[in-house]
Amino acid sequence: MTVALINASSRPLLEGKLPEGVEPLWFEGADQLMALAPQAEVAWLDMIAPPRAKEAIALMAGLKWYCAMSSGVDWLPLDLFRERGVRLTNGAGIHAQSVSEYALMGMLTMAKGWRKVVRAQDRHEWLTEPPGKRELLDAEVLVIGAGEIGAKIAQMLDVFGAKVTVARRSPGKGELGQGEWQGALGRFDWVVLIVPSTSQTTGMFGAAQFAAMKPGAVLVNFARGTVIDQDALLTAIDSGHLGGAFLDVTTPEPLPSDHPLWSRENVHISMHLSGRAQEGLLRRGAARFLDNLGRYQRAEPLAHQVDLSHGY
Amino acid sequence: MTVALINASSRPLLEGKLPEGVEPLWFEGADQLMALAPQAEVAWLDMIAPPRAKEAIALMAGLKWYCAMSSGVDWLPLDLFRERGVRLTNGAGIHAQSVSEYALMGMLTMAKGWRKVVRAQDRHEWLTEPPGKRELLDAEVLVIGAGEIGAKIAQMLDVFGAKVTVARRSPGKGELGQGEWQGALGRFDWVVLIVPSTSQTTGMFGAAQFAAMKPGAVLVNFARGTVIDQDALLTAIDSGHLGGAFLDVTTPEPLPSDHPLWSRENVHISMHLSGRAQEGLLRRGAARFLDNLGRYQRAEPLAHQVDLSHGY
Repeated sequence: MTVALINASSRPLLEGKLPEGVEPLWFEGADQLMALAPQAEVAWLDMIAPPRAKEAIALMAGLKWYCAMSSGVDWLPLDLFRERGVRLTNGAGIHAQSVSEYALMGMLTMAKGWRKVVRAQDRHEWLTEPPGKRELLDAEVLVIGAGEIGAKIAQMLDVFGAKVTVARRSPGKGELGQGEWQGALGRFDWVVLIVPSTSQTTGMFGAAQFAAMKPGAVLVNFARGTVIDQDALLTAIDSGHLGGAFLDVTTPEPLPSDHPLWSRENVHISMHLSGRAQEGLLRRGAARFLDNLGRYQRAEPLAHQVDLSHGY
Repeated sequence: MTVALINASSRPLLEGKLPEGVEPLWFEGADQLMALAPQAEVAWLDMIAPPRAKEAIALMAGLKWYCAMSSGVDWLPLDLFRERGVRLTNGAGIHAQSVSEYALMGMLTMAKGWRKVVRAQDRHEWLTEPPGKRELLDAEVLVIGAGEIGAKIAQMLDVFGAKVTVARRSPGKGELGQGEWQGALGRFDWVVLIVPSTSQTTGMFGAAQFAAMKPGAVLVNFARGTVIDQDALLTAIDSGHLGGAFLDVTTPEPLPSDHPLWSRENVHISMHLSGRAQEGLLRRGAARFLDNLGRYQRAEPLAHQVDLSHGY
């Protein structure tokens, strides 16, 4: 029997659908999780809080496969997984739609100055001039990172008439590779970051990259807060060089209430909500888990398995 | 010579490009406009205020062609044009991009509860739960009105994975005609109004239509305020039957500061800004005017001429 430790909140989505030979252990809350952890061969803990999940993982001596619903796995003990030979799968693709919808929303709201319209409505004031007149039509957009989310964002931008360039580690035709996009930064009205969080992408955007961006351009970060040097971003914003930033992710999270980013007129903070702004999240996560659980039982390769040395 | 009365604000975009045989009269401000009006055979007055424009038109005894940059022409003296045999052209299509971008922004911000995120940032508060989790993916959307704007909105929604149905006066394959969409209203999560303002569309959405909508559905109005019965909308909102409304247009405009629509939690008012939220507006208007001025001089049919009996 394969003992699978599963968050009881997913039980209604899984019960009656588990493959032969799987014995589910449903846990409710952190105490029960810790008590049952040592028995787990397979674990799917979402939506438990990351620190609790890590604590539980340390207790899972017999763990063979850890299923995560997040795309980024930098919050997980990758070294421990490597040492113990634990396979890790992630939720790459599950969040592509909701993050992409969020990214387009963010870009459109910045283009149109929507935040000022919201505040005007709160004052019952009828604005006579649009606070923003940017258009996505003909805008030059660089999307750095071309996983499922980056590809979907590019596809959506395309139908708005934006001119999209994609940068990735292994560039295809018409795409920019590492070391190519840096020299081209000055061409773009928008730069969208959606790279995985790895040692190579940490601090990828610092003072030099901001300085190389087109004056008035906007930075959009849906990757990880650590991908950008936040102090350098603040400098680039305050100097007036950058037109603004839309940050779904920050360092740290949550951002302390006295952090200067909160109050900049052209910095928009969306509190890492993008991936969870979907009604179907748990349903999609459960479908992914079930599919992989079948593969696991049939001793087939798992889908969306993370390369523990690359970290994605 | 064809005497063309033109707003001087467009002069930099037109000078040196006018066709042979056109004598431009550039006016600055309303006083000069009134003084020059009687000489006009052709007039393009944008961006003068509508009431001033109407006043000037009354003085244009020799007017043959009036060029308007707006899509809706219900604010113009159509009867007077008909009596005097004045041709009217509108800006249909010029605004398609900016209105469509605005419509998608509006729908996305409502889907994700973005207004609450804006207010949270203003309080420096990190939200831990998304205030909205709707997705455009798989959403059933009815777009009523299939001019250039409606078609573009439908095309954009399609790339988000929404299931779009179009309703129009002369329905094509898979589209709904007049009298068909009313019976289908209960199917849709979103209803987007982008019909022209005519006697037939005035009050098109009243208590019966709101009652027929799916519980929790959202009404999006980018047509004219008069297309909906605003009191009935308020009732449908306050009863909890409708999930919300995004209103680019209202009755009247500007909406008085004590109007109840301002303060409803799920009513979003965008102050008829959508069509003007574009950097290229005047440039596109000038290109349209120049093209038509050439046709006028060559005695060819004008593009985008309004049928004065239909009103669009």
